[in-house]
Amino acid sequence: MSAMRCQKCEQQAAIHMRQHRLHLCKEHYLAWFVEQTERMIAKYNMFARQERILVAVSGGKDSLSLWDVLWRLGYTADGMYINLGITSEDDYSNASEEYARQFAEKRGLTLQVVNVAQNTGRTIPELARRTGWGKDRPCGVCGIVKRHVMNEAALQGGYQVLATAHNLDDEAAFLMQNTFQWNMDFLRRQAPVLEAGEGFARKVKPFCRFYERETAAYAILRDIPYIEEECPHSVGSKQLFYKEILNKLEVDHPGTKLQFYVGFLNARQGGLFTPAESGDEEGGRNLCPGCGQPTTSSGLCSYCKVTRE
Amino acid sequence: MSAMRCQKCEQQAAIHMRQHRLHLCKEHYLAWFVEQTERMIAKYNMFARQERILVAVSGGKDSLSLWDVLWRLGYTADGMYINLGITSEDDYSNASEEYARQFAEKRGLTLQVVNVAQNTGRTIPELARRTGWGKDRPCGVCGIVKRHVMNEAALQGGYQVLATAHNLDDEAAFLMQNTFQWNMDFLRRQAPVLEAGEGFARKVKPFCRFYERETAAYAILRDIPYIEEECPHSVGSKQLFYKEILNKLEVDHPGTKLQFYVGFLNARQGGLFTPAESGDEEGGRNLCPGCGQPTTSSGLCSYCKVTRE
Repeated sequence: MSAMRCQKCEQQAAIHMRQHRLHLCKEHYLAWFVEQTERMIAKYNMFARQERILVAVSGGKDSLSLWDVLWRLGYTADGMYINLGITSEDDYSNASEEYARQFAEKRGLTLQVVNVAQNTGRTIPELARRTGWGKDRPCGVCGIVKRHVMNEAALQGGYQVLATAHNLDDEAAFLMQNTFQWNMDFLRRQAPVLEAGEGFARKVKPFCRFYERETAAYAILRDIPYIEEECPHSVGSKQLFYKEILNKLEVDHPGTKLQFYVGFLNARQGGLFTPAESGDEEGGRNLCPGCGQPTTSSGLCSYCKVTRE
Repeated sequence: MSAMRCQKCEQQAAIHMRQHRLHLCKEHYLAWFVEQTERMIAKYNMFARQERILVAVSGGKDSLSLWDVLWRLGYTADGMYINLGITSEDDYSNASEEYARQFAEKRGLTLQVVNVAQNTGRTIPELARRTGWGKDRPCGVCGIVKRHVMNEAALQGGYQVLATAHNLDDEAAFLMQNTFQWNMDFLRRQAPVLEAGEGFARKVKPFCRFYERETAAYAILRDIPYIEEECPHSVGSKQLFYKEILNKLEVDHPGTKLQFYVGFLNARQGGLFTPAESGDEEGGRNLCPGCGQPTTSSGLCSYCKVTRE
């Protein structure tokens, strides 16, 4: 491996991607990564050059790399950091915020910050304990809150597009979980682009075909400081469990994750599902009497249920 | 476990089924197993009392148990053993045939035997080596030959139904493989019943919701002698690989296999797939000029390609 040469020049290769049969030096890898992102944006019709994008930024390698690439490609992309109030693992949320702030400052980019505890009076772990949802894991409540805050920020800020940095490992694990449970609602909505609906911005995942190690390699080779710890609440989660299975499959059969995910997208395109009344776009039939956001509930939306007394 | 009592009487339990939260003594387990089979036959509309059934018998625990249960339930079910000419593992094919013959003889049942080497001049391993299909594994060729021979026997013998003893572990592993590859043809056709098509009998899988350990327990508690070795060519196969993953999942979450498979059947029923021109029944548009069986090929069918010079 160490003696391997870049396929575009004679430099020593910095990364070898077995699934693509491609090894590249640092410089050509960084260029390849940016080009690939641009290709995915075009391939899935994610957004046009003049559209305003809000990037969900966690302070980790994926989201900071995504913001970096969109900035380099000349898109108008602001960042949004949501401080969840997770204090374990060396003050996880505040440490992550600091990475996001430094990243934005260094490039002169705009970062919006929302602090959940300031907005609702409670941190995510506190909200989760109080509701008792998801037993000992606050991930369900966290997802509800993040979704609400992001939607609100996109609408109030006039952004047409919400970009998240989910990578292939995330998407394949989620897909595996959804197929194991044959969760048709989730399967229908799992795509690189979720079209805008009434009261919701379009949602896109430009990194959905990058392996996690590819986004990590980009952040490292680009010298982007990021929070290396995983969220302390993710330990033992179902998602990590499926990721491990997929990693084992990938070792024996390089490309398994990509084929699984892209095969699904192709089957989806080819009519895997019967057309539903709705499902390929964000939405909800009703307006929440608490916050005014669309919801599928006839009463308060999940966010209001979680955050109100 | 050993102190556990049968839930229907006070006898010591012989089997505990975590996924069903059910533990039963030998006598009640055997009765439960037969009843469950009858329920599945009715639930999926597999066959009626007067229909003639041909059971594919391998000499293993699943197929001999199936034949035993159908016989006990009073169905008209003959057996069909295909000798594949596999001589490794202590003369695997001939040993299996002997188990099938003894089973039939003891019950006064009719067993048809087809010997592949006598019919085609070559054993399955020889056919596989000659064609070079499937590289070092004859399973692909074996499947083609068995399918052809079974179809032919069903048609010539006037059987309306072909019954195979695929269990839940088989079906879940196959489903996992098919979803990983999003093989839409296989997914469309994976069901407890594949309706009869032009030139093909109906195919049914009455054991598709029994765990492998349940069919094994039935054979053992019923004192049915069967070949315990797996086919020597299955070692290292993809199917075993997926079975191992599913077994690991099942340990942590009892019922995973069943939920995965039944969830798929429900999604299928609920319109997972867009209606295809065909696909829910056996068939082929053309007739093979070699053997006269229907085929999707415009020339010789796979069987004729594999067996002819």
